[in-house]
Amino acid sequence: MKYLFSILVFMAAINITNAEDGYKLWLRYDKIDNPVLIEKYRQLIKGYSFKGNSPSIKVAEKELNLALNKLLDCEIQTLDNLRSNVILAGAHKNITLNLPEEISNKLKTIGDEGYIIKTFETEGKRITLITANADIGVLYGTFHFIRLLQMQSDIDNLNIVESPLIKLRLLNHWDNLDRTVERGYAGFSIWNWHLLPDYIDPRYKDYARANASIGVNGTVLTNVNANSLVLTKQYLKKAAALADVFRPYGIKVYLTARFSAPIEIGKLSTADPLNPEVRKWWKEKAKEIYELIPDFGGFLVKANSEGQPGPQNYGRSHSDGANMLAEAVEHYGGVVMWRAFVYDNNVPEDRAKQAYNEFKPLDGKFKDNVLIQVKNGPIDFQPREPFHPLFGAMPETPLMMEFQITQEYLGQGTHLVYLAPLFKECIESDTYAKGAGSTVAKVIDGSLDNHALTGIAGVSNIGNDRNWTGHLFGQSNWYAFGRLAWNHNLTSEQIAEEWIRLTFGNKNEIVEIIKNIMMPSRENTVNYMTPLGLHHIMGWDHHYGPAPWIKDKPRAEWTSVYYHRADSNGIGFDRTVNGSNAVSQYHSPVSEIFNSLEKCPEKYLLWFHHVPWDYKMKSGKTLWEELCNHYYAGVDSVRSMSKKWKQLEGKIDSELFDHVSMLMKIQEDEAVWWRNACVLYFQTFSKLPIPEGFEKPDKTLEYYQSLEFPYAPGIRPKWH
Amino acid sequence: MKYLFSILVFMAAINITNAEDGYKLWLRYDKIDNPVLIEKYRQLIKGYSFKGNSPSIKVAEKELNLALNKLLDCEIQTLDNLRSNVILAGAHKNITLNLPEEISNKLKTIGDEGYIIKTFETEGKRITLITANADIGVLYGTFHFIRLLQMQSDIDNLNIVESPLIKLRLLNHWDNLDRTVERGYAGFSIWNWHLLPDYIDPRYKDYARANASIGVNGTVLTNVNANSLVLTKQYLKKAAALADVFRPYGIKVYLTARFSAPIEIGKLSTADPLNPEVRKWWKEKAKEIYELIPDFGGFLVKANSEGQPGPQNYGRSHSDGANMLAEAVEHYGGVVMWRAFVYDNNVPEDRAKQAYNEFKPLDGKFKDNVLIQVKNGPIDFQPREPFHPLFGAMPETPLMMEFQITQEYLGQGTHLVYLAPLFKECIESDTYAKGAGSTVAKVIDGSLDNHALTGIAGVSNIGNDRNWTGHLFGQSNWYAFGRLAWNHNLTSEQIAEEWIRLTFGNKNEIVEIIKNIMMPSRENTVNYMTPLGLHHIMGWDHHYGPAPWIKDKPRAEWTSVYYHRADSNGIGFDRTVNGSNAVSQYHSPVSEIFNSLEKCPEKYLLWFHHVPWDYKMKSGKTLWEELCNHYYAGVDSVRSMSKKWKQLEGKIDSELFDHVSMLMKIQEDEAVWWRNACVLYFQTFSKLPIPEGFEKPDKTLEYYQSLEFPYAPGIRPKWH
Repeated sequence: MKYLFSILVFMAAINITNAEDGYKLWLRYDKIDNPVLIEKYRQLIKGYSFKGNSPSIKVAEKELNLALNKLLDCEIQTLDNLRSNVILAGAHKNITLNLPEEISNKLKTIGDEGYIIKTFETEGKRITLITANADIGVLYGTFHFIRLLQMQSDIDNLNIVESPLIKLRLLNHWDNLDRTVERGYAGFSIWNWHLLPDYIDPRYKDYARANASIGVNGTVLTNVNANSLVLTKQYLKKAAALADVFRPYGIKVYLTARFSAPIEIGKLSTADPLNPEVRKWWKEKAKEIYELIPDFGGFLVKANSEGQPGPQNYGRSHSDGANMLAEAVEHYGGVVMWRAFVYDNNVPEDRAKQAYNEFKPLDGKFKDNVLIQVKNGPIDFQPREPFHPLFGAMPETPLMMEFQITQEYLGQGTHLVYLAPLFKECIESDTYAKGAGSTVAKVIDGSLDNHALTGIAGVSNIGNDRNWTGHLFGQSNWYAFGRLAWNHNLTSEQIAEEWIRLTFGNKNEIVEIIKNIMMPSRENTVNYMTPLGLHHIMGWDHHYGPAPWIKDKPRAEWTSVYYHRADSNGIGFDRTVNGSNAVSQYHSPVSEIFNSLEKCPEKYLLWFHHVPWDYKMKSGKTLWEELCNHYYAGVDSVRSMSKKWKQLEGKIDSELFDHVSMLMKIQEDEAVWWRNACVLYFQTFSKLPIPEGFEKPDKTLEYYQSLEFPYAPGIRPKWH
Repeated sequence: MKYLFSILVFMAAINITNAEDGYKLWLRYDKIDNPVLIEKYRQLIKGYSFKGNSPSIKVAEKELNLALNKLLDCEIQTLDNLRSNVILAGAHKNITLNLPEEISNKLKTIGDEGYIIKTFETEGKRITLITANADIGVLYGTFHFIRLLQMQSDIDNLNIVESPLIKLRLLNHWDNLDRTVERGYAGFSIWNWHLLPDYIDPRYKDYARANASIGVNGTVLTNVNANSLVLTKQYLKKAAALADVFRPYGIKVYLTARFSAPIEIGKLSTADPLNPEVRKWWKEKAKEIYELIPDFGGFLVKANSEGQPGPQNYGRSHSDGANMLAEAVEHYGGVVMWRAFVYDNNVPEDRAKQAYNEFKPLDGKFKDNVLIQVKNGPIDFQPREPFHPLFGAMPETPLMMEFQITQEYLGQGTHLVYLAPLFKECIESDTYAKGAGSTVAKVIDGSLDNHALTGIAGVSNIGNDRNWTGHLFGQSNWYAFGRLAWNHNLTSEQIAEEWIRLTFGNKNEIVEIIKNIMMPSRENTVNYMTPLGLHHIMGWDHHYGPAPWIKDKPRAEWTSVYYHRADSNGIGFDRTVNGSNAVSQYHSPVSEIFNSLEKCPEKYLLWFHHVPWDYKMKSGKTLWEELCNHYYAGVDSVRSMSKKWKQLEGKIDSELFDHVSMLMKIQEDEAVWWRNACVLYFQTFSKLPIPEGFEKPDKTLEYYQSLEFPYAPGIRPKWH
């Protein structure tokens, strides 16, 4: 007994000294800390048996073995003979046992990626079945089962049927071949191109595990500001090595295609999509790729946007360009994801309207394996935007959602901003394309217009920081993206709770505190950055910090004043019928609501209206007062968040606690920076005092305007 | 008993599943695996008591607590009352116990950084004393004591007296403010400048722990190709935050000073070191720095070298420049480390001779707080160079050694090359400056010319890869640098054995295998890269892979043909009295030995002589045959190294095993690449066949010449 005691003491010591660095993400598999429950689980899980021999089955078995041994703190292994309380896992065709008929019926409805987890009795034995139509479904089901244990759920009598609502669930990495990451705030690219294909970093497998556990099934390895070198044999072999690692996890590799690649690496004199030599070059390139990566997913293309080459260089349309690439990959089952993020400073039109103007006329002109990838809002991943008017405007074309997980405009590497509410706000928006209930969700999951090919992409926040995402809570955004991509009906709160339990354990007190920090965090950030529909008033180039004073740059739409239009009368971009008429790109009644100063939701007010400083808001306050209120409330909410976090001291791992504490201090300082800089700057137009009772800025506007950050992270090196 | 069993099973499982990623370096503190010994240690270490309250004492106590709890697998804590078998640690002045007189005597000889570890009895109690003149010595002694346990040494009766032979033991980071690392092959900079000073990455503390454990006491944070921005207040605050982390560990922060900083950030019109405004600017800058970092170490300067500005831009000398900076920091105890790495393509002189020509005349003209930092050899960190002729040539000036730990020319991130033999070869070289026995070691430890200010620097191989150094065995080079900087009398083999035991455990079989891999590894690399005195025949710019064909570049000394001078008659750089006469820069008899074709060690042959292809070598073979022999032997030795490594499968952690196995495969491929490319290229001059029995290259010379690596790591971005 004395010896036992010293072992237990030792184990406690280990827990103290093994500081948690966040590398394991939500797959920590810490021992279940409830002694009654762990004993119960041990009784209910005496072993497991996996049927089938595919790589996906092998990794599923390995994952379950790892998870059970760690979570249940004892060795649980594969069993040859079926006995009671085992987990039986395999594709339906590999299960020889007689299964309840309902299982076969349900399997018909869940496709290749869906799965069933079902407890049933046969021959007096209690079996937990994880089955699917395909082995990848078994892997997904295995991760789901593990998650149930991690969350200390009841597993007595499971009856789970799951299948994804969207077909392509992709991360987009804006990673360059030199390992810089455009808009990356978590170190540098995890793709070590130089050492590939011969050195396989263990991270690659852990990346695949994490993604498979949340249902992400594809990854675009390279930046949309593309480098054609990645399409050379030398680099394709490297991409193929990654594809080999990811394949068992159901993750396909995609690449960005630089439109001028036929010139740059193909030695052609043109990249005209209607030129036969060019078309032949892409077909041969596709053949070369598929020989190396038989399940290559396809191309993501940024064309004729922000200086990238495209079909318009040759007087051709986006559909000409997309269809040429689509033709090259269609034979192999590949797709083309063509981005709608286009705008041109030579076009005398509100930037917010240009993508719609460009793409709507092309509806119906794209090949079947083309998706148009549309950002959630019409500008660029701002803290808040109304949904993009293209959603609901192109019924003949599969529109793919592009969210940004990396927080380019939401505090970059240091602000705790849980993004699920932003994602949900967009997909729950009603486009009214086919009357009430025509939500963005139904556009992208294909149900509104009967598209079988559907997709959603998240611009990755992953880097080579030890904890993958820089800010620990960045992990929650990666997690939330994957979970919503699988099932957009999940609530932000459900997902937050899952992630917290997987990351911080199941103590309710801890879960509640962290949930209360996460849930309002996005609204907080809108408040201290861009309340009431303001947008695009951040720092030049690096987009770090506030800079509403940016003007006189080579492109007007790259300035701040273009967007907020503050003057002595008021503030906001008039996009009503009297202004740029961007409201007309929305269906009725959305267009009328946005067009109306009274009906427009105040959260979008300055997006659509130029509003006088003394305009009476719903609160009864003037616009100026309300604006100040929001900025000050934003800072207060960060302070309140910090107070909540401090309650966790001593209750969670100290390294994680310190990590977040330091970042919250930065967030608070930067929230004050945003508030002061914006209020002081807008005050030069409103000429109104900061309302009574608010702390006065301790720095001048000139101070804030003088700040420079030449090495702020996430900028593409200029030599690209 | 059954419960106990299940706990033990669990612990075994944890060991299996906690894959080792190398983050912990040589401070792993894994539980001692010898049950008899661990019990003995537990008897001999019942507790500890630290005397003193300084930050250094606190981190020493924390480190010992961590190490004991993990190594001995039980909780060992501080004791208030002295009892038998305790560790008593503290500076001498804080120890109230009566100590044996010999301790006081010895303390007088070991300076501020030395320490004593002594077992003795007092009042019937057995005490292990760790004491020193200063608290930092106590920390060093604590790390030494921990190392004894890690190596499973006998601690019954300790009597250790240690002090460093060299005063400044520094890492030089060639890290840029954008986190790229010039010649870095382990990811990117661990300094996250953007988040400093508010976010303190836990890595900073672990970096300090690791360095303190091997006696490194200073770090130059920034690249010698310097950016003056680091001297602005904004960045100095960031450097100060790092200094705060490092201070308890006895590590001082140094910065690189860009000579033109007074112009770039000071708005002066000149950086002339004799200009009063310039001198005043540097003095004020030093004052500003010392207000933020009271123990700031000083400046490292690369001036008038490879495009960097310097005093010669104003017609002044290196001593003018160095003395100006020295004057600015001398009041605060700071030093200036002025690099001797200078050469100029406008000077019609053998590059190998230029540093000597430039600096020798300045001997005696530097202020007392200036060190001249000299690379180990006269060219640039080649796999093998003779020692730099400046060693022994400047008796009035403290010469600081600059070694390169990062493997710019020795396989970069993927070759296992244990560098201690390279370091030792240099420091054991006899300069004969004051007759036989005037070794380079005695020059740099100050004993030859009675310098109190002494220094040694290693260009860091550290990056933000999870294991710090990219290649696991890169850790051994960091370790070896630190250990040799402390005591250059240690043998390469002693250090290898220490590092292996700390990294892979104490099983003799494993230790022997790994030692047999490490010890010949540097000679292997010389063989497959640059045998017989060849040098500087690597790839252009990135220095990756072989490229003896490089010619016709803007600067002749940046080509390969400048160095190997192969022609139809023979190969090698004639540096004899009939050639460039570089030999004359060495003292007699070294100069005569190097000058003589017969006496010159064959390992330096082509460094000093242009030798006919049919010259008869000591082996009886012709030069051409011998050259081929070396190249082929190099490849064979890599293959043999791989075979030895394979013997470890299943005997060491599988993640570490796989990691090194993949890298060794790359090393083998690249050794073949070096051999084939060099032999095929030199064959175009020798016109002689590859000797019988050697495998023929499977690729052509043209193939090797066609290879391009636009994103090879470690190049300074061109926009700097």
